[in-house]
Amino acid sequence: MLPTRLTLSLPDWVAPHVSAWPEAAGDEARMRLVLGLAKEHVERDGGGPFAAAVFAGERVIAVGVNRVLPEQNSLLHAEVLAIMLAEKHFASHNLGAALLPRLELVSSCEPCAMCLGAILWSGLKRVVSGASREVAEQAGFDEGPVFPASHRYLEARGIELVHGVLREEAREVFDLYRLRDGRVY
Amino acid sequence: MLPTRLTLSLPDWVAPHVSAWPEAAGDEARMRLVLGLAKEHVERDGGGPFAAAVFAGERVIAVGVNRVLPEQNSLLHAEVLAIMLAEKHFASHNLGAALLPRLELVSSCEPCAMCLGAILWSGLKRVVSGASREVAEQAGFDEGPVFPASHRYLEARGIELVHGVLREEAREVFDLYRLRDGRVY
Repeated sequence: MLPTRLTLSLPDWVAPHVSAWPEAAGDEARMRLVLGLAKEHVERDGGGPFAAAVFAGERVIAVGVNRVLPEQNSLLHAEVLAIMLAEKHFASHNLGAALLPRLELVSSCEPCAMCLGAILWSGLKRVVSGASREVAEQAGFDEGPVFPASHRYLEARGIELVHGVLREEAREVFDLYRLRDGRVY
Repeated sequence: MLPTRLTLSLPDWVAPHVSAWPEAAGDEARMRLVLGLAKEHVERDGGGPFAAAVFAGERVIAVGVNRVLPEQNSLLHAEVLAIMLAEKHFASHNLGAALLPRLELVSSCEPCAMCLGAILWSGLKRVVSGASREVAEQAGFDEGPVFPASHRYLEARGIELVHGVLREEAREVFDLYRLRDGRVY
């Protein structure tokens, strides 16, 4: 039987967790919320230590956590889920469409090669990340073929990439994961 | 309301179309099937002119077509759906796991930056593609930040990349799309 359908979902605790978020102005305040989501995800042994969210200014539109292990789906990085769910929310494959509010992605870690491509196709025009590639790699997570030219490619298409926001707090998520003997896959 | 769930699916015609496939040995025979799927997809105005399939030898495990427009989801490239559905079939996030048969991805076009990352994370060890990046770009489809070093990165991790299988027939899918005034998004 050819598989023809699949359902992807966030864990049940995520929506109430996020509904308690205050409106957060600025990159650091929004990153703090995303890192809180990542920590909660790790503490619940939910999967890889990553979270992401799409914001319209102070308002959260959609979030994602890494669901590779629980959904048995290697593509379900936090950014992938956040982008897909934001596109569902707006019923649009283009998060940069003129009719939409200005949308930004905040991710607990620098996006990997796949997620950089996904960001490009999503139409998002601003991406804020926390932990560096080096921190992810020290924790055993590969980032894939990402080069300085990859970032320049996105920037040349009008995408602003902001790295290292709350980088120390972002590193702590990986420390927590290691302390809990989190699985590196 | 925070979106927390989404369902992805192939069009209803795909499963009967694929169930009529003969067992196909070798790269060209399997590519011919995938290009037939891509053409049928274009003729049904299903979306971008791309198809892909995961094979275990002569047996098809899962397929994908580009569903960006109908699903309003910019990440739903043919390769993404084929990989996700193959992982669902095997209930595994690792298509390179020792217990599984040797799996290969056949794609009607060279994988874009996102899909190259997705291939790396999927554990697939062999990828066969048809149309070149240049053909896709001439048709108006960007491939994203893919460099010679990107391919070398995957090859260094044991992934064999075979390009240009039935390249002329693969180009004809784009010609057909243009003839039908297919949308470039």
